[in-house]
Amino acid sequence: MTSLASFKPQHFLWVVNDRIAVVRLNRPDRKNPLTFESYAELRDTFRNLVYATDVDVVVFASNGGNFCSGGDVHDIIGPLVGLDMKGLLAFTRMTGDLVKAMIACGKPIIAAVDGVCVGAGAIVAMASDMRLATPEAKAAFLFTRVGLAGCDMGACAMLPRIIGQGRAAELLYTGRVMTAAEGERWGFWNALHDAAALEAEAMKLARALAAGPTFAHGMTKTQLNQEWNMGLEQAIEAEAQAQAICMQTRDFERAYRAFVAKQKPVFEGN
Amino acid sequence: MTSLASFKPQHFLWVVNDRIAVVRLNRPDRKNPLTFESYAELRDTFRNLVYATDVDVVVFASNGGNFCSGGDVHDIIGPLVGLDMKGLLAFTRMTGDLVKAMIACGKPIIAAVDGVCVGAGAIVAMASDMRLATPEAKAAFLFTRVGLAGCDMGACAMLPRIIGQGRAAELLYTGRVMTAAEGERWGFWNALHDAAALEAEAMKLARALAAGPTFAHGMTKTQLNQEWNMGLEQAIEAEAQAQAICMQTRDFERAYRAFVAKQKPVFEGN
Amino acid sequence: MTSLASFKPQHFLWVVNDRIAVVRLNRPDRKNPLTFESYAELRDTFRNLVYATDVDVVVFASNGGNFCSGGDVHDIIGPLVGLDMKGLLAFTRMTGDLVKAMIACGKPIIAAVDGVCVGAGAIVAMASDMRLATPEAKAAFLFTRVGLAGCDMGACAMLPRIIGQGRAAELLYTGRVMTAAEGERWGFWNALHDAAALEAEAMKLARALAAGPTFAHGMTKTQLNQEWNMGLEQAIEAEAQAQAICMQTRDFERAYRAFVAKQKPVFEGN
Repeated sequence: MTSLASFKPQHFLWVVNDRIAVVRLNRPDRKNPLTFESYAELRDTFRNLVYATDVDVVVFASNGGNFCSGGDVHDIIGPLVGLDMKGLLAFTRMTGDLVKAMIACGKPIIAAVDGVCVGAGAIVAMASDMRLATPEAKAAFLFTRVGLAGCDMGACAMLPRIIGQGRAAELLYTGRVMTAAEGERWGFWNALHDAAALEAEAMKLARALAAGPTFAHGMTKTQLNQEWNMGLEQAIEAEAQAQAICMQTRDFERAYRAFVAKQKPVFEGN
Repeated sequence: MTSLASFKPQHFLWVVNDRIAVVRLNRPDRKNPLTFESYAELRDTFRNLVYATDVDVVVFASNGGNFCSGGDVHDIIGPLVGLDMKGLLAFTRMTGDLVKAMIACGKPIIAAVDGVCVGAGAIVAMASDMRLATPEAKAAFLFTRVGLAGCDMGACAMLPRIIGQGRAAELLYTGRVMTAAEGERWGFWNALHDAAALEAEAMKLARALAAGPTFAHGMTKTQLNQEWNMGLEQAIEAEAQAQAICMQTRDFERAYRAFVAKQKPVFEGN
Repeated sequence: MTSLASFKPQHFLWVVNDRIAVVRLNRPDRKNPLTFESYAELRDTFRNLVYATDVDVVVFASNGGNFCSGGDVHDIIGPLVGLDMKGLLAFTRMTGDLVKAMIACGKPIIAAVDGVCVGAGAIVAMASDMRLATPEAKAAFLFTRVGLAGCDMGACAMLPRIIGQGRAAELLYTGRVMTAAEGERWGFWNALHDAAALEAEAMKLARALAAGPTFAHGMTKTQLNQEWNMGLEQAIEAEAQAQAICMQTRDFERAYRAFVAKQKPVFEGN
């Protein structure tokens, strides 16, 4: 059991209200690059979220008109050049561990993306469960622009499942910007909202999820990952087990009682 | 070998004409909820379809302006509240078995959806091979509204493959209605038709499939499921075997002879 | 190590300029059908591409206003009728081996599709990494029209990942034409261009990819296939390894040095 409501991270912003954590990177003058330190602290935070009893939903928000400019060229790419394989693999595994931690944290994550959302920043958005953006959002998997492959932090696995194999291949090979309109049309962004409305919309969605049933939401998240690579018949059995577990929660009974009483159910997360 | 042409089910409607079975739920006053009995009888019927020699295509149609309102709150959800784990798992496995039976029945299924198509009803539409709908069709995976998870009857596996991972996550977490226009744009509905034209269009498609080659259609259905979770190279070998089998059917030769004679082939299903 | 710059195939056209190979079938009077001989020679060519040191990108182009009409009815389907299972399986495996060779060739393939693109021709387009087309492009998986199943050369595995499971099922069961507009909307075509501009656009994209980083592009292609059927967490680890390998290329360092010097990087493929 962990409390994250009053958590004070060193390398990003973190505020919890009404069981919703809002996280944002905090170097807006440089469009919020990631650093070794923020990678590691984000990874640890999402790992701790599994045990947090006072956070139900995470909003990964923008700052100063941009979401994230990816790994900082000076702070990250410079030091990587010349590292030996042991050091390089330690780095790529750490970045992958952030994605693994987001996927395994047990709480829905909503990305609220304005402006620049590139490189590892695009991966963070992609590893979120849902993605809202502004018409100014510019997502790019620009790894090939720095001499690297499109296969970074799970991109070759995740992006095809979100927007289709052909569109994903183009973005990963070319590193070109996906416009906000393309992203909405292709299913990368769940919806577009003006910059002035973006966070309010993200918070509205977050509140709807925080209203529960949060135990069930956690199971939905688990199964979306768990069934990624199952046979269809095995997935159906896995869901029979998972849903039977949810049917033993009191939230299921609360919903039924509320329905019979023609009331709105009040979920309690157990 | 089984005949289903004169089958008289107790808990839904079933009519066979020209080797096309039209099935529909039959409680239109309540928007056609599923009950324990109709679940079980549908499961058994789709299991029997594997061996049916007089049905080639199934149309799962609407009734009274609605497709299906899902598991009935009074008849199903009420009794589930308070069941022990053994009983709950027996229920979730039965509902999953309906989906498994639809997927394994060996004949293409076309859903023709008007109006309400929610909960288990949305799953039945999703487990069909193709889906036509009206502009009034309202699909919702509303399990979270009753305190449960989005992982029901294979939804977390199937929905992402149909509309993409991001859109699926939103629908499964929120339980919100997918409008007909969204569903068409996202690939959930293959096409939209006015209510007055829906069944005629579904029957037109069904007749085209019933005209054959029905043995080959069965192999297409088998492989769409079989390759769900295969490596790509293994899938290619699996199709080499499956298609070689089809090349030994007389329907393949009939098509060739018709082509040479500049005629339309008449397939016989063997 | 193999040179393909001056390769002279017997059964299709092949021209290499600036490390870009342009391949096209060469029976435009019959809309470029495939034959036993062109299948086999294409398969061998894509297998050799793995070792080719003078080709970085392939453009699979149209000829005379059409891409490919699939397996020739007279030259292929006729002889297949009556073959025994050993002979049939030898044929279906050879066609599948072409797709396997394209996927494993290590270089990005861009299909540039005008006019007819049907049967095995549609598969060749689908097995390419990216697909450009004209508004006149007509793609159809018309196997069922000749009495066969939609599962041909990997179609039941690949098409659902590109355009979604529901749309793929319709195309594979019915064999109907996917219009160019549908294909663009559904993600099958990356973009549409007028016939007069098609090849220039394909070459522009090919030049962008040939400018590198080509070693990294090869890794992107490898991982897009490799992760087809991995668990998500395993895919993330696989990418940590793959990207660490790319971080030891000199192209990664070249990109960093160019960035610091505010120059455009010149990649050398190592």
